[in-house]
Amino acid sequence: MGTDVRTLGQGATALVIAAIAFGAGLLGDASHVAAGTTNYEWDGVPTIWRSGIWFPFVLSGSVVLAAWLSERSGSPPARRRSRADAATGVAAVVALYAVTALMRGEPATVSVVLVGALAVVIWSWWDPSPGALALACGAAVLGPLFEIGVVELGASSYADDSDGLGGVAPWLPCLYFAAGAVASRLWSAVQRDGA
Amino acid sequence: MGTDVRTLGQGATALVIAAIAFGAGLLGDASHVAAGTTNYEWDGVPTIWRSGIWFPFVLSGSVVLAAWLSERSGSPPARRRSRADAATGVAAVVALYAVTALMRGEPATVSVVLVGALAVVIWSWWDPSPGALALACGAAVLGPLFEIGVVELGASSYADDSDGLGGVAPWLPCLYFAAGAVASRLWSAVQRDGA
Amino acid sequence: MGTDVRTLGQGATALVIAAIAFGAGLLGDASHVAAGTTNYEWDGVPTIWRSGIWFPFVLSGSVVLAAWLSERSGSPPARRRSRADAATGVAAVVALYAVTALMRGEPATVSVVLVGALAVVIWSWWDPSPGALALACGAAVLGPLFEIGVVELGASSYADDSDGLGGVAPWLPCLYFAAGAVASRLWSAVQRDGA
Repeated sequence: MGTDVRTLGQGATALVIAAIAFGAGLLGDASHVAAGTTNYEWDGVPTIWRSGIWFPFVLSGSVVLAAWLSERSGSPPARRRSRADAATGVAAVVALYAVTALMRGEPATVSVVLVGALAVVIWSWWDPSPGALALACGAAVLGPLFEIGVVELGASSYADDSDGLGGVAPWLPCLYFAAGAVASRLWSAVQRDGA
Repeated sequence: MGTDVRTLGQGATALVIAAIAFGAGLLGDASHVAAGTTNYEWDGVPTIWRSGIWFPFVLSGSVVLAAWLSERSGSPPARRRSRADAATGVAAVVALYAVTALMRGEPATVSVVLVGALAVVIWSWWDPSPGALALACGAAVLGPLFEIGVVELGASSYADDSDGLGGVAPWLPCLYFAAGAVASRLWSAVQRDGA
Repeated sequence: MGTDVRTLGQGATALVIAAIAFGAGLLGDASHVAAGTTNYEWDGVPTIWRSGIWFPFVLSGSVVLAAWLSERSGSPPARRRSRADAATGVAAVVALYAVTALMRGEPATVSVVLVGALAVVIWSWWDPSPGALALACGAAVLGPLFEIGVVELGASSYADDSDGLGGVAPWLPCLYFAAGAVASRLWSAVQRDGA
């Protein structure tokens, strides 16, 4: 059990969270592209690995903003989270991201129940507080709305068997719910380690 | 960390557990029906969502009874469980339920090892006590026996690729094991919240 | 919460760990053989269940050696693990083993991200210490190298859709990483129970 407490400054905390979200987003999105769940439609856009260059930056910026807003809101966490917990939480969200890449051809009922139940496992383990729940619900609404906009613009598309929610996948709100839940206490977990 | 302890009466506790089990059963069973894992065979029976009307009531009553018997037995828990833990535990069982809906066409060896190992993860995390193990094993025997009876009566059936255990799925005891394990301390977790 | 501390001798600890690894290896390997992920190629070799007779002995001996070396190294654990935790950890590795048996036909990107993220979840939950990380990384290198040798010898083979890493599966290092992580504190968890 770490007994020393190492603390990062605000800028360093933001940079670490940005880097984590950047990497996690690339890993998850590559799973979606490899499985054919999503396609990037604009030819001229440069790519990083399998993602359009804008994707990891938008995701990374959103996660940093969400984590910072949650920290500033002062809503009390139900559990104090360490850097090791943050590794578990982020890896769990990446794993859930990859699970959604297995959902092609599955009935929406199955995929939504599975991804939704796993998202509740992640939230209620990570931080079963009203503040984390609010951020998770906000992400579950705003994330898919943003992606519906991206699909409308023609920049990307979901596969025919995975576009039942206004052009995006029906399980997408559940995946954003889990990501929002973990983002909710990521700032303090990254900033201050220790028991 | 909740410091106040809110306590429910016996009737309210039973009602909350009944409602949770009712909802969880509907979600899981809908996954099975959507995947074609199970079929309801009697035409005249009213349905709730995708389940025969009797299913969620039988399940709900059984879970309340199991939770109450476990509470009354006085067998000591290995871990004290909060309402947040209960959310994690119930969501984990629903997720496992949905995982079984993905097992069509998989060899029985794969599905039984996967669902069985995940059931042990759930039990040993939730409450690795002899009392919880006994209830989990009881559920693993009685649940599939009841379903074998239902299939014999012709009220429902499992898909041809998922009926290797006397007409029901070979992984079914593992799913009941996990549900029984979580039922074992659900009463006290729901009744008394707090640290 | 167990308050008594029951302690095993060194020999008994080694035997218990050997038995656990033997059983876990048979369960996981049977999943691979049943799914067609791996095949045993030499006809004359006796089998235990679905494994060539040498497999569970090599695995079991390696796990005992790894657990003992980790215990002897004196590297401090980040978390104290009980026997109940060991049940969770071993079951999680067996579940991950069975998950890899579902990966036939999946793109390597999806399977590696999924199995890798779950392996990080297991390591960072079980013991997020540098010592456990070192053993996990060692296992992730040595395990697949050994299996590549076995494939080269012609004793076994991976399916055509699962042999992209020098003849073995691309997710194999991730599975060994998880197994090595849990092996790292298995000795003390098995030897001394209690709070």
